[in-house]
Amino acid sequence: MNGGEEENRTTQNIRLLPSPNPYSQKRSSKMPSSPLSPPPPQPLTPQSFRLGCRNGTYNTTTTLTIPTVQCNLLALPSRYAPSFAQLCARNPVSCPLLYSTLPGSPTTPLAPGANLTTDLPKYNVYKDGKLLTPDGTASVEEYWTRDHVGFLIGCSFSFEWALSAAGFPPKHTLCVPVKCVPMFRTGIPLSPAGEFTAGCVVVSMRAYKERDVEEVRRITRSFRRQHGEPVAWGWDGARMLGIEEKVRKGLVDFGEWVEIDGDAGEVPVFWGCGVTPQVAVMESRIEGVVISHVPGCMFVTDVPVEEEEEDPSPKL
Amino acid sequence: MNGGEEENRTTQNIRLLPSPNPYSQKRSSKMPSSPLSPPPPQPLTPQSFRLGCRNGTYNTTTTLTIPTVQCNLLALPSRYAPSFAQLCARNPVSCPLLYSTLPGSPTTPLAPGANLTTDLPKYNVYKDGKLLTPDGTASVEEYWTRDHVGFLIGCSFSFEWALSAAGFPPKHTLCVPVKCVPMFRTGIPLSPAGEFTAGCVVVSMRAYKERDVEEVRRITRSFRRQHGEPVAWGWDGARMLGIEEKVRKGLVDFGEWVEIDGDAGEVPVFWGCGVTPQVAVMESRIEGVVISHVPGCMFVTDVPVEEEEEDPSPKL
Repeated sequence: MNGGEEENRTTQNIRLLPSPNPYSQKRSSKMPSSPLSPPPPQPLTPQSFRLGCRNGTYNTTTTLTIPTVQCNLLALPSRYAPSFAQLCARNPVSCPLLYSTLPGSPTTPLAPGANLTTDLPKYNVYKDGKLLTPDGTASVEEYWTRDHVGFLIGCSFSFEWALSAAGFPPKHTLCVPVKCVPMFRTGIPLSPAGEFTAGCVVVSMRAYKERDVEEVRRITRSFRRQHGEPVAWGWDGARMLGIEEKVRKGLVDFGEWVEIDGDAGEVPVFWGCGVTPQVAVMESRIEGVVISHVPGCMFVTDVPVEEEEEDPSPKL
Repeated sequence: MNGGEEENRTTQNIRLLPSPNPYSQKRSSKMPSSPLSPPPPQPLTPQSFRLGCRNGTYNTTTTLTIPTVQCNLLALPSRYAPSFAQLCARNPVSCPLLYSTLPGSPTTPLAPGANLTTDLPKYNVYKDGKLLTPDGTASVEEYWTRDHVGFLIGCSFSFEWALSAAGFPPKHTLCVPVKCVPMFRTGIPLSPAGEFTAGCVVVSMRAYKERDVEEVRRITRSFRRQHGEPVAWGWDGARMLGIEEKVRKGLVDFGEWVEIDGDAGEVPVFWGCGVTPQVAVMESRIEGVVISHVPGCMFVTDVPVEEEEEDPSPKL
């Protein structure tokens, strides 16, 4: 791995927040501040959420917790880093790469002060492609060696705020308590890269009325580094992905099932999903210790979710 | 479409040749030049090859004609250009975008002096998603309007020189006359983008001994913008792509069939293919006139084929 300035390794399209965090200031300024009122509750900030993960307060899905960019995490021995970066480059809808760490450094400028080994709600640890921690683990400090390189990958949770704001809240976000989005392993193979020779595309599913699919496509399209627009939709789409039966029966591979109300005109809509690399690690039998998040339990950054501006000219 | 300096629209990873072309000089310098010898035959240069296309001398596959970067061409009405650029970004193994023109301009700095409407061996023209020219046409001057935007996409022909130099010549290049590589429409859907909602991954196939597959993967891996390493290999790979039967029976969708010698231990190896966007245009029923090359009859640039340097750090 090359060295270089940590700040420079951040992708240019993501604006970093200056410190102190204006997001939390903005939220605070809306709170009542009269001396006659009781002291206002502290709003949940990315920093306080991550601290809550670190001290064990939060250990479940990050769906709609904080309106900043959320990330999938995958950390692996440095010898696999070049191939993994290529896997991301060749499969950018499944694996939109936002940042990679220096070997051994569990930090990122996307969340200054954060520790990637403690600040996620729950982790999966793999050894030689097999899951070591079937119930997840709250910290991976003991597994993350000086040789581990961490990759942060965009997540569709980042655009759920925009869907909700536009009047299309994903159904799992309306459940009480909030559910984790349903996810499926498809029959679509990944484009291989180096040691990553096996694995399939994993998708998240949200049900929408068929007549709303075009609008939902439009809303999510500009979130290019959070999987962007759907990869397929409708029952024809489910068939094309090779998962019609699983979806009809509600047999999720990850996350929690949420009904599709066919009588109300709903159909399944599928997006790329950052659980994909975990399947690639398992199916390619990557050797050594690989660290990831439990699906749905994401890394919450300080980066505000902003739609990437549509550029009418092709990006070359 | 935005304007901007034509030169600046070239991707940085491709080095442009200074003029005059050192490639042709280098070739010329190896020719005998004694006044007692007959005048040396003129070596085929990218410029003379394109001129041969323009005047009708060349109208067949460009396989192993010139050792410079060859490209797939797709030109479409400008209103589709942003979605098509996104289709490429979301499917970079099938559609590695090298350059896009300004609307109406059939020129590119990848081949100064070339005219994209006359300088390919043979063209396909589509109207409203249907092929207008079943036998191909030698020129598209009458179809390319002031509103057409041309996209140049990397091609696997560019790495066939490297395969041959390493002792792994693709079998179709050994036929007399040279055949066009066999190509197949797979069952793998493209990631949709805007109006491009349908279409499948197209692959080219070259047969290699099973024991050579890893070396062939390694050689082609660094040609990242010419489809890079294979997307699948072996009969399991053919099955995964949904084309086992077509490949066993030699039923090509494009190009020409070349036998796979199972007794000699050969298996099929599949690479991404720039015919993919033509299928997307047809299946997505893109309106208006779309111009492309006849599969195998590529645009020959002046850019030398150089392996992109392996960078051990992830490219962010």
